[in-house]
Amino acid sequence: MGERIPHWLDKQAALHPQRTAIETPDGERISFSELRDKSRKVAFALIENGVKRGEHVALLASNSTMYAVFIHAVSYVGAVAVLLNTRLTSAEIAYQIEDANVSHVYADGRHVQVAADSVLEMNLDVHRLEHLTERKENLYELQTDLDLDDVYTMMYTSGTTGNPKAVMHTYGNHWHSAVASALNLGVHAKDKWLNCLPLFHVGGFSILMKSVVYGMPLMLFEKFDARGVHEAIMDKAITHVSVVTVMLQRLLEKLEDGTYPDDFRCMLLGGGPVPEVILKKTSAKEIPVFQTYGMTETSSQIATLSPEFAFSKLGSAGKALTPAHLYIDGKERGEVGEIIVRGPMVSKGYYNRPKREGEYLRTGDLGFEDEDGFLYVVDRVKDLIISGGENIYPAEVESVLSSLPGVREAGVTGRPDERWGEVPVAYIVVENGASLTEKEVMDWCRKRLAKYKCPREVHWIDELPRNASNKLLRRRLSSFSMQGGEG
Amino acid sequence: MGERIPHWLDKQAALHPQRTAIETPDGERISFSELRDKSRKVAFALIENGVKRGEHVALLASNSTMYAVFIHAVSYVGAVAVLLNTRLTSAEIAYQIEDANVSHVYADGRHVQVAADSVLEMNLDVHRLEHLTERKENLYELQTDLDLDDVYTMMYTSGTTGNPKAVMHTYGNHWHSAVASALNLGVHAKDKWLNCLPLFHVGGFSILMKSVVYGMPLMLFEKFDARGVHEAIMDKAITHVSVVTVMLQRLLEKLEDGTYPDDFRCMLLGGGPVPEVILKKTSAKEIPVFQTYGMTETSSQIATLSPEFAFSKLGSAGKALTPAHLYIDGKERGEVGEIIVRGPMVSKGYYNRPKREGEYLRTGDLGFEDEDGFLYVVDRVKDLIISGGENIYPAEVESVLSSLPGVREAGVTGRPDERWGEVPVAYIVVENGASLTEKEVMDWCRKRLAKYKCPREVHWIDELPRNASNKLLRRRLSSFSMQGGEG
Repeated sequence: MGERIPHWLDKQAALHPQRTAIETPDGERISFSELRDKSRKVAFALIENGVKRGEHVALLASNSTMYAVFIHAVSYVGAVAVLLNTRLTSAEIAYQIEDANVSHVYADGRHVQVAADSVLEMNLDVHRLEHLTERKENLYELQTDLDLDDVYTMMYTSGTTGNPKAVMHTYGNHWHSAVASALNLGVHAKDKWLNCLPLFHVGGFSILMKSVVYGMPLMLFEKFDARGVHEAIMDKAITHVSVVTVMLQRLLEKLEDGTYPDDFRCMLLGGGPVPEVILKKTSAKEIPVFQTYGMTETSSQIATLSPEFAFSKLGSAGKALTPAHLYIDGKERGEVGEIIVRGPMVSKGYYNRPKREGEYLRTGDLGFEDEDGFLYVVDRVKDLIISGGENIYPAEVESVLSSLPGVREAGVTGRPDERWGEVPVAYIVVENGASLTEKEVMDWCRKRLAKYKCPREVHWIDELPRNASNKLLRRRLSSFSMQGGEG
Repeated sequence: MGERIPHWLDKQAALHPQRTAIETPDGERISFSELRDKSRKVAFALIENGVKRGEHVALLASNSTMYAVFIHAVSYVGAVAVLLNTRLTSAEIAYQIEDANVSHVYADGRHVQVAADSVLEMNLDVHRLEHLTERKENLYELQTDLDLDDVYTMMYTSGTTGNPKAVMHTYGNHWHSAVASALNLGVHAKDKWLNCLPLFHVGGFSILMKSVVYGMPLMLFEKFDARGVHEAIMDKAITHVSVVTVMLQRLLEKLEDGTYPDDFRCMLLGGGPVPEVILKKTSAKEIPVFQTYGMTETSSQIATLSPEFAFSKLGSAGKALTPAHLYIDGKERGEVGEIIVRGPMVSKGYYNRPKREGEYLRTGDLGFEDEDGFLYVVDRVKDLIISGGENIYPAEVESVLSSLPGVREAGVTGRPDERWGEVPVAYIVVENGASLTEKEVMDWCRKRLAKYKCPREVHWIDELPRNASNKLLRRRLSSFSMQGGEG
């Protein structure tokens, strides 16, 4: 048994009953005391549906206030929430439901069919999230404390090889993650964080956790919508937004010549290396971008740039947060190596998989620390291209490609080559109305990159393959080679 | 073994090497990286003196930067710091050194003699704090992690009966206390906390902990000095000060007709119930006073008024902080009873004493919760006067006495009485130049208090007996009865 703390939603409802817990762009608003009452009543409904303490309850749904209510209800019951990605096929969902030993499945209206398809061959029903009516307080006992060592959520991550694995998060992982971020970014009375990331990924989920740990209002979007998010930042007293690169790009287009209000103090940018051209644009518009590094296994951020270095260390993901260790495996400062982490926000392991040896987590990401100890994330280990013995980091090549006028975004991956082992290949999405030739791209690269880093082929595609958290899936790029043709 | 986090001073030195860690009113300044280096070098000196991991090292000293260095050095060694009160006699110190199983004693120049006297009959030397010269980094291994379950400090508390007991604080107690305060008061980039409380008491010590957990500059006073503290608030960008009532009174005298700068955002007021007349004065001057409730056993604050209720719930110590429980023993809301607490900042127990039964700590303090759940601390259980079956809370009577023009401060305690069991007796310190008669005092009370609460005697004294943290020692008041005479 670990350290126990009062149930965090009970606590916020006691401390700030009238304070807004969640608001939505279409004007819905729920206070901490209302959120608590609703979540407890839904917890009773879960219990009446047969959900027991410690059982695994899957949820397949888009972001909504009801999603948040469900998440808190699960904590009142003491069950474990298995959060499923809404972009998955029914076969993928079926795998996760079986692998995670799920005993109850909930889905919102839009996803109830795919959920039902996925459990066809199992002895499971799918309940509609919207049908979870609130029940009166009754004889069932709800959790009044949270044990920081208890598992609360499971989220699947694809890992480097093989089947997806369920990352187990304890209450403590989420608690320490929220606290670590508070100690880095500060906590102000007027903070209001906008979330447009899916709640079934740790990036979005962690904002829901910050809201309930800090007692902070959360503006919850169903999904990213550049215009809506832009307008909220401009008019709705938003102080923080979490984004990935592609979202930041869209927001930059909306901002045009303006700047954000003074109270907007953090654009938290995760999801991997960022092309330099975008960082320069944000810098020119004085947007307080904080690059951050984290993954499902670290319950969101584990390193983030501190406010005071936001501009002087542009491009860096900063340093490991207060209660975390981070080092580069066996390398001198400045050299690239695998990023290794440890801390109370790091998951103890994967469900139903062998336990991790030792306390440290090998992230599978490559990075280096500069002379002042600031982390620069270079790439995924698995995305590394080794060509004639030289390392090529796709993100570096993509950054150069993205800076070419007319290029909207670019992806780079390796293709087998008899002589060099692998050679880099570029996949480019052009701006609307722009026209580029392969020669222009090659010339641009040759001026800016060592010869071995320059793409040997250029393919023009309509969209880069991304996962539900908008991360570029480089290994899928090669399937686009067939579609190629000059733009 | 508990959760382990990177050594907090290493972490701050890595995150913000140049940021000020400690400054003093006379212009001394040390950055986090300097503080780290110095503390590590002093840790090596401690090891060379024979201090081993897990051993108990006593310190008898006034506040200074070297005090802070010593505290951090102890954590690098992994020893336990036994912090002695400088107001104690050598006999009292001898008791604590023996009781705490101390193996090494350090004292600053002003206290080295009393420390030496206290160990005369023991096989111990006293080392001078100032002679702890910094040693070069060497082969000894220092702690790079802190285990939140390890004991870090011991401080003596007098308890309600019998000999003083050493409260054991783990790293986790101090960590969770600092985090709990951050989640309540917020953390801003410009925060700078002034400490004028003794570091050997938990109120002062907790500010040193906040500094190293938040990476926040601390302005360290050797002791309270109304003029110095006032000037620092006015001119030195101080944002927070921790005080007890008597200090607040002195500061109010200095402020006269002015107000504090806008950036000053928290006067944290602890140390027991506060006369209403003082709270009204602070309210009139728009001083952001946050009444707080805590004790050595709770590693400082466990309940504090939230900023948004600073004025509407004047006089309340607020609600239990985010990771803490607090309730009033077996009473309806509104009724007075003993305050019971639990949380990760609560000490697991006393050194060398039987373990506490259960998770909850009985505080020995009396309080009630109002209709909105806000805590009002009424008095110490042991100070309660029971007269003819009625409860009299000395603090309530003192509050009425303090509001009488000409009264500087007042203390009330019980005296045995054949008919009533006990009756209240007042001890009054008059303002300079003021003159009052017993009749005036009696008349003032009779108009404002039920008859049984009115003092039966009035004694005029020069100063109220207080302990080193300036708490009123009511049980010592009766020894002043002999000195009485009209003022």
